Amino acid sequence: MPRTRIQGATILTMAPGDEPIDSGAVDWQDDTLTYVGPASAAPHQAPDQSIDGTGCVLIPGLINAHTHLAMTLLRGFADDMHLKPWLEEKIWPTESNLIQDDVYWGTRLGILELLRGGCTCFNDMYHFYETATRAAIDGGIRACPSGVLLGILDNAADLLEHAIEFTATVKAQANGRIHPMIGPHAPYTCPRPLLERVAEASLEQGIPVHIHLSETRGEYQESVAEHGLSPVQYLESIGLLQCRVAAAHCVWLDDRDVETLVGRRVGCVHCPGSNMKLASGFAPVPDLLNAGAVVALGTDGAASNNNMDMFEEMLLAAIIHKGNSGDPTLVKGQEALAMATRGAATALGIDDVVGTLQAGKRADMALVDLKGPHLRPLHSVISHLVYAAGAADVKMTVVDGQILWRDGQFPGQDVQRVYQECQARALRLCGS
Amino acid sequence: MPRTRIQGATILTMAPGDEPIDSGAVDWQDDTLTYVGPASAAPHQAPDQSIDGTGCVLIPGLINAHTHLAMTLLRGFADDMHLKPWLEEKIWPTESNLIQDDVYWGTRLGILELLRGGCTCFNDMYHFYETATRAAIDGGIRACPSGVLLGILDNAADLLEHAIEFTATVKAQANGRIHPMIGPHAPYTCPRPLLERVAEASLEQGIPVHIHLSETRGEYQESVAEHGLSPVQYLESIGLLQCRVAAAHCVWLDDRDVETLVGRRVGCVHCPGSNMKLASGFAPVPDLLNAGAVVALGTDGAASNNNMDMFEEMLLAAIIHKGNSGDPTLVKGQEALAMATRGAATALGIDDVVGTLQAGKRADMALVDLKGPHLRPLHSVISHLVYAAGAADVKMTVVDGQILWRDGQFPGQDVQRVYQECQARALRLCGS
Repeated sequence: MPRTRIQGATILTMAPGDEPIDSGAVDWQDDTLTYVGPASAAPHQAPDQSIDGTGCVLIPGLINAHTHLAMTLLRGFADDMHLKPWLEEKIWPTESNLIQDDVYWGTRLGILELLRGGCTCFNDMYHFYETATRAAIDGGIRACPSGVLLGILDNAADLLEHAIEFTATVKAQANGRIHPMIGPHAPYTCPRPLLERVAEASLEQGIPVHIHLSETRGEYQESVAEHGLSPVQYLESIGLLQCRVAAAHCVWLDDRDVETLVGRRVGCVHCPGSNMKLASGFAPVPDLLNAGAVVALGTDGAASNNNMDMFEEMLLAAIIHKGNSGDPTLVKGQEALAMATRGAATALGIDDVVGTLQAGKRADMALVDLKGPHLRPLHSVISHLVYAAGAADVKMTVVDGQILWRDGQFPGQDVQRVYQECQARALRLCGS
Repeated sequence: MPRTRIQGATILTMAPGDEPIDSGAVDWQDDTLTYVGPASAAPHQAPDQSIDGTGCVLIPGLINAHTHLAMTLLRGFADDMHLKPWLEEKIWPTESNLIQDDVYWGTRLGILELLRGGCTCFNDMYHFYETATRAAIDGGIRACPSGVLLGILDNAADLLEHAIEFTATVKAQANGRIHPMIGPHAPYTCPRPLLERVAEASLEQGIPVHIHLSETRGEYQESVAEHGLSPVQYLESIGLLQCRVAAAHCVWLDDRDVETLVGRRVGCVHCPGSNMKLASGFAPVPDLLNAGAVVALGTDGAASNNNMDMFEEMLLAAIIHKGNSGDPTLVKGQEALAMATRGAATALGIDDVVGTLQAGKRADMALVDLKGPHLRPLHSVISHLVYAAGAADVKMTVVDGQILWRDGQFPGQDVQRVYQECQARALRLCGS
């Protein structure tokens, strides 16, 4: 069981209250962190492999808490359109032609992009989720896969039961790197009995739920018209928010919704890039943070972002609410970084294994190189990570103890195959 | 006189109406483009040097139309603060200790960052502008330097005359790469007679003006209270907008202001990153574009951004107005790219030499590599440039025919010296 050490880096454990550790060291054995602290106090036993982290900052692997990863195939296919024609004329017709292997390769491509950007885990909701899960296993990354459970389908109830069975079988695979979720698409696409069954299964079997929630003003207004309740209160009335829920978007919330989301410890997954590009609006992230909500960050799919760069999401989360409110003190750099690490792990119910760098947790980490001209001089590593760095500054990404990205290479991955498959499939699907 | 060719890249000339050229070629001799078009129709005469652009897109060098480049020294020094304590407790006290050499090295650092990100020209307003100009000359980049003319200083009139003299002498240097401006700081920091003299000198001698304009709500309100006019109308009443003006920010505008800015062909320099981070607000960019204004993009200084990545500014310009308006069709990718190239050149009065890739113009270009996983598959090069790429994707940057950044290297530059000088000076200035 070889032991590896990264030393010389500044370490941000992201555990509450921890200060940055200058000249730190992190040891891990197999999949687990065994030491996190000053290099001067590291275990005397020499590691089997030692990695120089000088001039870098080591952070918990970033967690993309809401995406549809295989949509990388549609990256740049349709932009700058109104939501209805974008969905009805572009996205949905293309997706209707998706086959399993498209999802496999599109997900593999997205995994490469995530790893390159220091992202060690993604929360996915997409068609052919069993195939996406296989891609995650093959790609080496940590993942929380779920399907897109559309309650309007005739066989939705059967699909749900199948999804529940799937979660039980997949947990034992890939060293526990797969943390399956149930993915009812949204309150407005799932009838109440289906959501009740989701809640029941989630509570009984401890399966977290991944759902879109209150993304657009129209969704909020229609929910009030139909149920007399906001989307959040509608889910609360069903009992769904008693589950471990990662709720994507949470843009349109009233004060009572914020209170409910905080009280139920719902993971509110902020997707600022998507919310801006699709013109969904400004999620009340400052209010959520102020009220003590669990807030995570996600990119959403590549058709509405268009990359999977969590540094970009941190930047957007930190600046757009300042601009929208007129208050430049809202959503501080430290808070944005917490959303992408500790907050996301809590939102996904995996904070017992990842989200902070602490001995005993899994070795999911990103080593960010601070040597570029845009990261000089160095006053504050947190400021640089949130306000100046980007995915391209990640020098090394480690998942479950395995080095999956290092110095511009993906060790052991047939990257050209992934690229060729995706270009060909994109051409077939989109004709461009 | 050696001839160089880049071939195989997709070329975006950014000239109005031009379509992307697949498998293109660009030839240049010394400082000037001699051919831009399909590789198949390129001159038969073999170039002295041939560069393979396969898998890349070639665009006009990006132009950062508003910055204070030496503020790289303050990058990450103070974030998430209210404007008044940020300026009064952090930025201004630190700047008051600046010496000439600080500005030289801070500017050199910023130039490295700009070149790495495909930026070939910057419009600068900062203290010790003669020193910043020397840094631009030494750094090889194109620049529009100006001082920070604070009319509240006792010797402001003398400083202005000195600045006017400086513009005349510097134009003949560095192969015409330096395009000096006059930089009255803002309407509210310059008394009317000084602005009148600026207008007179600008019109007489053809020197463009660089000024901050209507950045904050407070500035707008105070101008109305003091002059009975908005900041834009106040400058119009002085005659200043008859000059070639690059007006940074233009956030708080009424309908008449938009009309005036359009009618006077004022270059409105949108700084979305700074406007969000400092909570200045949303410039009415969709209105300006719709009315036919000259719109450019700038990063502002590194203390309020915190990087000089023009790709990030393009992304922000393209998405924040969608989010703010609820209309996802506003500020299209193509428009954002035009702001950073053609629009910026027009705003700075240098569109006769740069801003588009056309034979006869100066060879200022950026070659962007599309081979990363975040830029696959390829449906649209414009979409990728604006919505998915970043500064780190730039493979080569050419200014005035000289290759200043290529494959991770700055040929002929002592980069480590720049980094060391800046870290030491930042430590002295900021104590961190």
